[in-house]
Amino acid sequence: MSPVPAPGTSELVAGIFAGDGRRIGQAISAAESGDGVPELSRRIFPKTGRARVLGLTGPPGAGKSTLALKMAQAYRARGRKVGIVAVDPSSPFTGGAILGDRIRMSEIYTDPGVFIRSMATRGSMGGLARATSDAVDILDAAGFDVVLVETVGVGQDEVDIIRTAETVAVVLVPGLGDDIQAIKAGILEIADVFVVNKADKEGADRTSAELAMMLDLTPGRSWRPPIVRTVAPRGEGVPEVVEAMESHRSWLANSPEAGFRAARRARARLVALLEERFHRSLESRSPESNGLEEAIRRIRERREDPYSAATRLFERLTREPAAERA
Amino acid sequence: MSPVPAPGTSELVAGIFAGDGRRIGQAISAAESGDGVPELSRRIFPKTGRARVLGLTGPPGAGKSTLALKMAQAYRARGRKVGIVAVDPSSPFTGGAILGDRIRMSEIYTDPGVFIRSMATRGSMGGLARATSDAVDILDAAGFDVVLVETVGVGQDEVDIIRTAETVAVVLVPGLGDDIQAIKAGILEIADVFVVNKADKEGADRTSAELAMMLDLTPGRSWRPPIVRTVAPRGEGVPEVVEAMESHRSWLANSPEAGFRAARRARARLVALLEERFHRSLESRSPESNGLEEAIRRIRERREDPYSAATRLFERLTREPAAERA
Repeated sequence: MSPVPAPGTSELVAGIFAGDGRRIGQAISAAESGDGVPELSRRIFPKTGRARVLGLTGPPGAGKSTLALKMAQAYRARGRKVGIVAVDPSSPFTGGAILGDRIRMSEIYTDPGVFIRSMATRGSMGGLARATSDAVDILDAAGFDVVLVETVGVGQDEVDIIRTAETVAVVLVPGLGDDIQAIKAGILEIADVFVVNKADKEGADRTSAELAMMLDLTPGRSWRPPIVRTVAPRGEGVPEVVEAMESHRSWLANSPEAGFRAARRARARLVALLEERFHRSLESRSPESNGLEEAIRRIRERREDPYSAATRLFERLTREPAAERA
Repeated sequence: MSPVPAPGTSELVAGIFAGDGRRIGQAISAAESGDGVPELSRRIFPKTGRARVLGLTGPPGAGKSTLALKMAQAYRARGRKVGIVAVDPSSPFTGGAILGDRIRMSEIYTDPGVFIRSMATRGSMGGLARATSDAVDILDAAGFDVVLVETVGVGQDEVDIIRTAETVAVVLVPGLGDDIQAIKAGILEIADVFVVNKADKEGADRTSAELAMMLDLTPGRSWRPPIVRTVAPRGEGVPEVVEAMESHRSWLANSPEAGFRAARRARARLVALLEERFHRSLESRSPESNGLEEAIRRIRERREDPYSAATRLFERLTREPAAERA
C-alpha cells in the first residue's frame, strides 16, 4: 500500500454512517491513539444507542474468540449485522491483538455484515476502556445491530470494561475445579449468563453442578443466570447462548436494573475521560511550571515522602485557574 | 480470633521498625484499603531506600512463585532477609491472591527472615500499583534486605508495577514458539535478566536460542540481559539467577541508567498518587456540587456526548479553588 493522507473527521463520520468498513477501522484506530476522538464522538453520538452491546469474558484459553465468532454467525442467520470488539491489553506476553485478528479474519472476513476488531493500546487500561467505548459507539452509529465485546478476564480493569455491555456472559471451561470457590464473588457480580465451553471435556458436569450450587446459595436475585453448555468449534449450544442473552435482555427491559446499568455505564465512561484528561494535563505541563520535577527530586533525595508531595501538588494543580495552564 | 481494635499508626510504625511480622502485615492491609497510608508513609519514608527491590514477571504458569521462593531461600543462605510481594489483581477468575498465599506459606513460613504477601485489591490497577509501592516501602523500612515483587505479566499496568523494581527478571517457559516474535518489543524493554524456567522440558534449547538471537538483533544496549535456565522446583539454576541479578546491580551502580530509573520510579509513584486523589475527589463530591450526576443524565439522554461533558466538567473541577471543595 502506498501512503495516503489520513482521512479527516468529516470523511470518517460520513464513512461510518455509510457503514464503510475501511473508514470504521480508521475511526477506531484514531480512537485508540492519543487523546481519542472528541470531534468524531460529538458528531456520531446522537446516532448511537441502537445497538445491543453484549459482553463475553472469561479466563485465557476458555475459547471466547471462537464462541464470539459462532455467536456472530448465529446473529447473522437472524439477519443482524454484528461487530466484534476484542479487548486484549497490549500484552508483552500474549501479543494477542496481533495474532487474534489474523485467526479470526480467516473465517468470516468476507461477510460485510460482520466487523471484527482487536483493540490494542500502548497506553493505560483507562485509555483502553475509553477507546473500547468509542469503538462500540462507532459500530453502533455505523448500524451494527449487535456489538460483542470480548475481554480476557484477568483483573478489575477488564471487569470494568465488560461492564460497558448490557448483558455479560462469563465463559468457563471444565477443570477449574476448586477454583470456582475462590472466584465466586467476582463472577457472581458480573455474570448474566454462564457458558460452560468445551463441554465435551471431562468435568463439564461437575463445573455446571458447582455453578448451579453456587447460584442456589445466593438467592434473592431477581435474575438467575442460566448455565449453557457449549462446544464452540462445532457450534453446539451456541443458539442456546444467544437465546439466553436475549432472555436477559427481555428481563432487563422490564427491570429497574436497566436504568441503573445505563447510569453506571455513563458514569464509568465520564470518569475514565476525566481521568485521562487529568493524566494528560500532568504530562503536558512544562517541567518548570508543574512542580512535578522538583517533587520527584525531593522524593529521590528522601526529603519528602510521596504522599505529602502528592497532597502539595494536587492543591496546586486544582487551585490554579485552567486558563493559566496552557 | 476475637475481634481486636485496629492498631493505630504509631503502633504500626513501631512494629515495622521492630520487624514485627504481624504489624507489617497489618500495615500492608491498611495500604491496600481505601486511601492508603499517608501518615505511616511519612513516618517510615526516611528509613527506606536500603532494600534491593527485584522484579519477577512473566506469563501465567511460568512458575514465577516457585522461582521466587527458591530465590528467597538462596538469599537467605547468604544471610539476607527477604520479602516477597506477589501482585495478583483481584481476579474474578484466578483467585490467585487467596490460593497463592496458602501454597507459598506452607514451604517457608516458619522462617522469620522471610515475609510473603499477596496483594489484592478491589480497586483499580492504579490503586494496586500504589499499594504495592507502599508494601515495598514497609518491608524496606522493616529491614528486609531484598524485596521481590512478583507480577503476572499481562498488560501495560503490570509492566508499570514491575518497573518499580531496580532489576527485573522476565520468566519464560519452553513452548512459546512463534509468540516470541510477537512479544519481542515489550519484553526487550523491561527485561534485565531472562529466565527460561522448566528448562527440562522440550523446546528449552529453542527458546533460549530465540532469545539470544533476539538480543543479537538489538545491539547497542550497554547491558545485555543474560539468559539463565532453571528448573525452579529442584532449585536448578537458581544461584545463577541470583548471580545475574547481582551482576545487573553492579552494572547499574556505575551507569547513568540508575538515576534515570530512580527518577522514573518516583515519577510513576507520584503520578499514581495524584491520579488516585483526582479519582477520589470525583467520587467524594456531593452529587449536586460536582455536576457529575447531571452530566450522566445528559449523556444517557444523548443530549451531550461524553467527550464534551468531560471537557466541561474538567474545566469546572480544576478551576474551582480547592478550599471550596470540602
